[in-house]
Amino acid sequence: MTKTNSGRFFEDYRVGEVIRHAVPRTIGAGERALVHALYPMRHALYSSDDFARACGLAASPMDDLIVFHTVFGKTVPDISLNAVANLGYAAGRWLRPVYAGETLLSESEVIGLKENSNGKTGIVFVRTTGFSGDEPVLEYVRWVMVRKRDPEAAAPETVLPELPDAVDATDLIVPDGLTFATYDFDLAGEPHRWGDYQIGERIDHVDQVTIEEAEHMLATRLWQNTAKVHFDATHRDDGKRLIYGGHVISLARALSFNGLANAQMIVALNGGAHANPCFAGDTVGAWSEVLDKSETSVHGVGALRMRLVAQRSGTPPFSRKGEDGKYLSGVLLDLDYWTLIPI
Amino acid sequence: MTKTNSGRFFEDYRVGEVIRHAVPRTIGAGERALVHALYPMRHALYSSDDFARACGLAASPMDDLIVFHTVFGKTVPDISLNAVANLGYAAGRWLRPVYAGETLLSESEVIGLKENSNGKTGIVFVRTTGFSGDEPVLEYVRWVMVRKRDPEAAAPETVLPELPDAVDATDLIVPDGLTFATYDFDLAGEPHRWGDYQIGERIDHVDQVTIEEAEHMLATRLWQNTAKVHFDATHRDDGKRLIYGGHVISLARALSFNGLANAQMIVALNGGAHANPCFAGDTVGAWSEVLDKSETSVHGVGALRMRLVAQRSGTPPFSRKGEDGKYLSGVLLDLDYWTLIPI
Amino acid sequence: MTKTNSGRFFEDYRVGEVIRHAVPRTIGAGERALVHALYPMRHALYSSDDFARACGLAASPMDDLIVFHTVFGKTVPDISLNAVANLGYAAGRWLRPVYAGETLLSESEVIGLKENSNGKTGIVFVRTTGFSGDEPVLEYVRWVMVRKRDPEAAAPETVLPELPDAVDATDLIVPDGLTFATYDFDLAGEPHRWGDYQIGERIDHVDQVTIEEAEHMLATRLWQNTAKVHFDATHRDDGKRLIYGGHVISLARALSFNGLANAQMIVALNGGAHANPCFAGDTVGAWSEVLDKSETSVHGVGALRMRLVAQRSGTPPFSRKGEDGKYLSGVLLDLDYWTLIPI
Repeated sequence: MTKTNSGRFFEDYRVGEVIRHAVPRTIGAGERALVHALYPMRHALYSSDDFARACGLAASPMDDLIVFHTVFGKTVPDISLNAVANLGYAAGRWLRPVYAGETLLSESEVIGLKENSNGKTGIVFVRTTGFSGDEPVLEYVRWVMVRKRDPEAAAPETVLPELPDAVDATDLIVPDGLTFATYDFDLAGEPHRWGDYQIGERIDHVDQVTIEEAEHMLATRLWQNTAKVHFDATHRDDGKRLIYGGHVISLARALSFNGLANAQMIVALNGGAHANPCFAGDTVGAWSEVLDKSETSVHGVGALRMRLVAQRSGTPPFSRKGEDGKYLSGVLLDLDYWTLIPI
Repeated sequence: MTKTNSGRFFEDYRVGEVIRHAVPRTIGAGERALVHALYPMRHALYSSDDFARACGLAASPMDDLIVFHTVFGKTVPDISLNAVANLGYAAGRWLRPVYAGETLLSESEVIGLKENSNGKTGIVFVRTTGFSGDEPVLEYVRWVMVRKRDPEAAAPETVLPELPDAVDATDLIVPDGLTFATYDFDLAGEPHRWGDYQIGERIDHVDQVTIEEAEHMLATRLWQNTAKVHFDATHRDDGKRLIYGGHVISLARALSFNGLANAQMIVALNGGAHANPCFAGDTVGAWSEVLDKSETSVHGVGALRMRLVAQRSGTPPFSRKGEDGKYLSGVLLDLDYWTLIPI
Repeated sequence: MTKTNSGRFFEDYRVGEVIRHAVPRTIGAGERALVHALYPMRHALYSSDDFARACGLAASPMDDLIVFHTVFGKTVPDISLNAVANLGYAAGRWLRPVYAGETLLSESEVIGLKENSNGKTGIVFVRTTGFSGDEPVLEYVRWVMVRKRDPEAAAPETVLPELPDAVDATDLIVPDGLTFATYDFDLAGEPHRWGDYQIGERIDHVDQVTIEEAEHMLATRLWQNTAKVHFDATHRDDGKRLIYGGHVISLARALSFNGLANAQMIVALNGGAHANPCFAGDTVGAWSEVLDKSETSVHGVGALRMRLVAQRSGTPPFSRKGEDGKYLSGVLLDLDYWTLIPI
């Protein structure tokens, strides 16, 4: 009997099935330092315990994307080991901040299945929940295209989940105790408040970073995401290692400090596309667009719905899709999220 | 007077001499995170405080190989600065788990000496003990070939220590309190128990990792192992930096998760050979063979004696030695250890 | 209105102005581990809590250069984003050790201005203070050449601060409680005391390290120093990323262990020049010269004033300046500092 995990194929999923993922992971001071070394992160709430306490939190929480990557990484062996493509995200919400010393777990429910017309692959929709102990801290929906083990296997009944275009602003969760009443804009690095951002406004974040192989592998391993294609130079015919999409998300978020320094917390993931593959040697920049604005249930805490786009150096400013509706080749990431910012 | 350390030569060692090594080192949350970034580690006991507590420990201990590399690194300036080759290991035992915040020290006793027939080099055998404060936490025997300062110097009396082929199963130390009574195989990542492994069974761990210069240097420095050959591209005629053998050990152990996810703790090192040099750019995979099995003094805790082999991509599966008894050129590491696993 | 920071130009500075820098940063166990992975650090006081406690401190403090780089990094967006060159340092003093968990802030006062005769640039002198909360922990003077936004703008009145050639030994601050009364030279790694070093003595630190792109970028980001030239391979015409001078300082300091293992704490920065640019692929070594010696206010604690020079492999030993008074091309760093060592 083979002892190793060859992953699930399309016909192995059943709608309603709940998969508990291995391996639980305690995160803390080391992971915090490493993400600051891996990405040019400067958002004050994640940089300083004192700043976080002045904002009503117990300490500086773990970066929201550490939580996302850790929860996501656990799903890879069960969901995407035989995936052809990561197709999309929806309905993502951070339910409360996570602090150093907490242990994260992941669980996914299969909420949709649709075989493709070619009979060789199908789409699997899962709603993944991240837990700290028994308490949910993050939830999101992801769908991936997965190979069938046996092309002759009968197609399952098609079930397509209803997914919102974006998380409704009234469903955003503002962390208990969060306040921007004594927010220090000098220390945060920029003067711009919620009221200074207009729907449709676009911001070029100016700075760029050239990516090295060692960096993206350090990051991807840190989230225990062990998909071969990120680590094994013999896996692709061209000898290249594909950079984990989450590395590009974190890099773009960090670059967005320059123009969005006060967009402190990510509280919802409305959607996202890894538009083109990214490889070591690529120099990556980012731009943002304000898609929507909302007040929240907490006085003084506003929400911005932002598009965050990462693009390769040399791509024209503010690139996204061509006239054919397809992403331009220099575009790497198109992310849609809600963030909290002082009003 | 020169202030720098030029290392000891063969004639500087005396049987019975005890060498206290510099520099003590406190290890903790940062080192833990770094090894997770450097290697694709997923064993649950070292990943999760909650999982470790469910196994009866106070918290997730520092990875057994962190302890080994740290203790080993301290011996380099006194034992292997002028070594030609690291010849072998024997009789290694982890005496108790080490937790974040402990400070490690090393001490070595010279237990054997044998001059080589060429008169230019000799073999030095040392028994190294790692301490946390005054308490021993690890012991192992290592022997290295060391240059003589003066080829004309008289040969010392030959003393060869008696070394076991393997640590006897009855000598394995199961950590106080360790229990697998409520072990969660779903969270650990695989269902395979002690009873599922047969002597002689071999496991291909499937995954491979391509190594970068930055990674092996980060790792090697982290253990304060500062042997020139790992860091200085001008040191060898071919301009290559040799990868510290311990980097390959940790990488192979991490890869072995896929098939040995429940082999949680390493408790003995029976032997090991760094079969061939490893360089950045090498893509490395691993396989294991079950050499022996034993119950332990603790109900429900079994022991497996495993061979762990690391090999370069492209080497045939399960490669080790050729018909001439020599390691095949693609084989990098051949390690023999005891591990604890739920029965 | 643009949201991004384009930095200050020469005419934006006023003598007497105090600039509070963003972003506060909590440092701890993760940063400690990372600097040990990035540099071959072995000074015992920063490696071991037990050793530091035996020296009268509460625990192993954060490395003095972590404190310097963190405080310095915060000044970059306000002081040197449009700098042409970092010209010098003076009057630097560490005011007390910083421990894991403290949050650092920076503030700079403009203490001098001088427009250059070309009318296109000017020199800005700032005195930067690093704080932990309200308490100063580090101070130093730095001067940089900054571009003018408008070459036609009127020159400010020239103000040149008086700067000492070196911090006077009587002004060195020995941390409260520091004692070398029970100092363990075996554990520290070398036997050499204050009395063993003579003014004029030079030490070749022997070891060298070849630098990788990933390493210097990890380090530079860790200090939240986000100057483009260190990260963006498209920024210079030659496609090279310039290595942050602080990376070379930390590397040289770590290499100096071999010969200066007991030079435990850096307590003053008298001056420093980044003599030539450093790039990935460079193999870097270091040498030191004893410039001065002094007792301190604390019995048993001596001070050495050291020159620390980093140079590229292949440069003749003990290189510094040519007969024309200019730095030789292989010289990367010329640093002048005071360190504490057992008498």
